[in-house]
Amino acid sequence: MQRAGAVRPSVFMERALALAAQAAAYGEVPVGAILVDSVTGSIVAEAHNRTETDSDATAHAEILVLRAGGAKLGSPRLGSCDLYVTLEPCPMCAAAIALARLRRVYFAAFDPKGGGVDHGPRIFEQPTCHHRPEVYGGVGEVEAAALLRRFFAERR
Amino acid sequence: MQRAGAVRPSVFMERALALAAQAAAYGEVPVGAILVDSVTGSIVAEAHNRTETDSDATAHAEILVLRAGGAKLGSPRLGSCDLYVTLEPCPMCAAAIALARLRRVYFAAFDPKGGGVDHGPRIFEQPTCHHRPEVYGGVGEVEAAALLRRFFAERR
Repeated sequence: MQRAGAVRPSVFMERALALAAQAAAYGEVPVGAILVDSVTGSIVAEAHNRTETDSDATAHAEILVLRAGGAKLGSPRLGSCDLYVTLEPCPMCAAAIALARLRRVYFAAFDPKGGGVDHGPRIFEQPTCHHRPEVYGGVGEVEAAALLRRFFAERR
Repeated sequence: MQRAGAVRPSVFMERALALAAQAAAYGEVPVGAILVDSVTGSIVAEAHNRTETDSDATAHAEILVLRAGGAKLGSPRLGSCDLYVTLEPCPMCAAAIALARLRRVYFAAFDPKGGGVDHGPRIFEQPTCHHRPEVYGGVGEVEAAALLRRFFAERR
């Protein structure tokens, strides 16, 4: 993984951050994700967390864009796509990203307690992981972390 | 994890095996899963793999029953439920099972190449895994492994 540090978020990460802010308004943990076709540069799918809204433990933003993107492009394998997500993917989402064979993953905030890319099982570094996307962490980190801090502070 | 060895599959695992056989008929990797309410003993949801049919890399049998079960019971958290699945869950599905807080997981065949419970990242043994279900592996192993062997042999 490459750490992007204090790099300014791209247009796509800005959109993912806007979706994360929407999630908070619904009482969902503020995480947003965008799936982009790397060939055309167009957005294929976008989502925020919907676990409570949908009563679905798997309804993380990343899973939702992989599902919608696969349906739209007609294949479970999305090798030409890049993911922009505002929080380091958890182990479930990291493993799903490997199954979908994404080209690149850009994430904003790091998640030492629940992350599965740079923390925990470090899914892409497992010998049994069959696909390793390029990963860039920390793009838009400041904005994403502020959203999460505010959300949890308001619930304490 | 407890290894059930040559124990005969239960009624629920028999049903999961029947779903796995259906999956093969659709050209899907033959894996079936059942979600059972441990209090009432009734089946909450059942599914087989649908990754190709749905163009969805996340459409493993386990994910599909967690989604359907959450919608049916009105909560992403399914702490009273047990899962019966014909193959050792992959890291994505194991992490989803932890997020859904399932009570028990019974699986049939072991999966050294793609499993995430007894192999690979051993998701439930990670210090950052927030919920560990009871796990019983090998229930119906012979039947499940035979289905998988036949499926891959026919495609070579």
